[in-house]
Amino acid sequence: MENEREELAMAMLCDVVETLQACGCFDAIDVLSTSIIETGSANLVLTEKGLNEALNEYLKKMTSHSIDEPVLIIMADIPLVSVKNIIDIAAVSSDIVIVPGRMGGTNALFIRTPSRFHVDYYGASFLKHCEIAKKNCLKLGVFDSFNLSTDIDEVADLAEILIHGTGQAARYLKKLGFALSDKGGRVGVKRS
Amino acid sequence: MENEREELAMAMLCDVVETLQACGCFDAIDVLSTSIIETGSANLVLTEKGLNEALNEYLKKMTSHSIDEPVLIIMADIPLVSVKNIIDIAAVSSDIVIVPGRMGGTNALFIRTPSRFHVDYYGASFLKHCEIAKKNCLKLGVFDSFNLSTDIDEVADLAEILIHGTGQAARYLKKLGFALSDKGGRVGVKRS
Repeated sequence: MENEREELAMAMLCDVVETLQACGCFDAIDVLSTSIIETGSANLVLTEKGLNEALNEYLKKMTSHSIDEPVLIIMADIPLVSVKNIIDIAAVSSDIVIVPGRMGGTNALFIRTPSRFHVDYYGASFLKHCEIAKKNCLKLGVFDSFNLSTDIDEVADLAEILIHGTGQAARYLKKLGFALSDKGGRVGVKRS
Repeated sequence: MENEREELAMAMLCDVVETLQACGCFDAIDVLSTSIIETGSANLVLTEKGLNEALNEYLKKMTSHSIDEPVLIIMADIPLVSVKNIIDIAAVSSDIVIVPGRMGGTNALFIRTPSRFHVDYYGASFLKHCEIAKKNCLKLGVFDSFNLSTDIDEVADLAEILIHGTGQAARYLKKLGFALSDKGGRVGVKRS
């Protein structure tokens, strides 16, 4: 099970990286990770730090090299993200684009000038990121997307991949024998 | 509690109706209900039937009067829907626009020619509606929206209204003393 969970996480990461590559919006794709993993043609950036510290260090390092170019931060467990989603986010003219996850989360952040922003994940990070943008006088956009709001946390969430997914994560789940369980009421997942 | 639940349902309906009115896309707004309720300036259509039967009868009645004009079917428990959402849905050129809810649901349907479509809610209705469109050779569009995917079913869902809501439902919950409970991990709701 633990092995399958890791393989699913890798399949989801792969879906996200492939989408980022296919949209052609970015010069570099860096995958931040605490362990050595396969990232395809994306760069692996190893870190021992927690999510907030690692990302804020990453943003700081970028700007310290006098590079203050747009950065998109996207979680690796959002396998439904589409090429159109990414192109549409990058086309928003605001200084900061926040993409809400369910229950107050932030599933992606598009930051035009990283020197003027820092991240604060966990809890109602959507509200915290709105506040940080406001404090720094940054014009804020909220990007409305079901695809991007759908992070895969729990077993029940696998239904979203089975229903809407078209990439590696969907193929992996089907290979493992996962299918929708639909008794006419609530949809769930079952395994053969 | 039951009374509050009903009042919240009415506040959500009111948010949806007001949004539909504000967008100016529709000649008539009909609220289908099994009981007499306040619908503001929308028309009340009383029915004793279940969701599928009532809606299919509604579509049939429309077309029997030689009116085969676009119909938007939208659930009443989607208080985050915005005017921009509705305008964007109506601008999609497909024959059918399906707006997914979480877990396989269909939270809105835009049907250009009602004579060529019928609804089939419950369970994985998103997939069923895709299938019906395909069988009737209708060009299908999927509308990607977090706002519209967020139907309010359970107490935990109230957090979405508190975080993103700006209408009557949000005001009603705050009046009742609901607030976010954020302990840094998962966000929930608490009541004072």
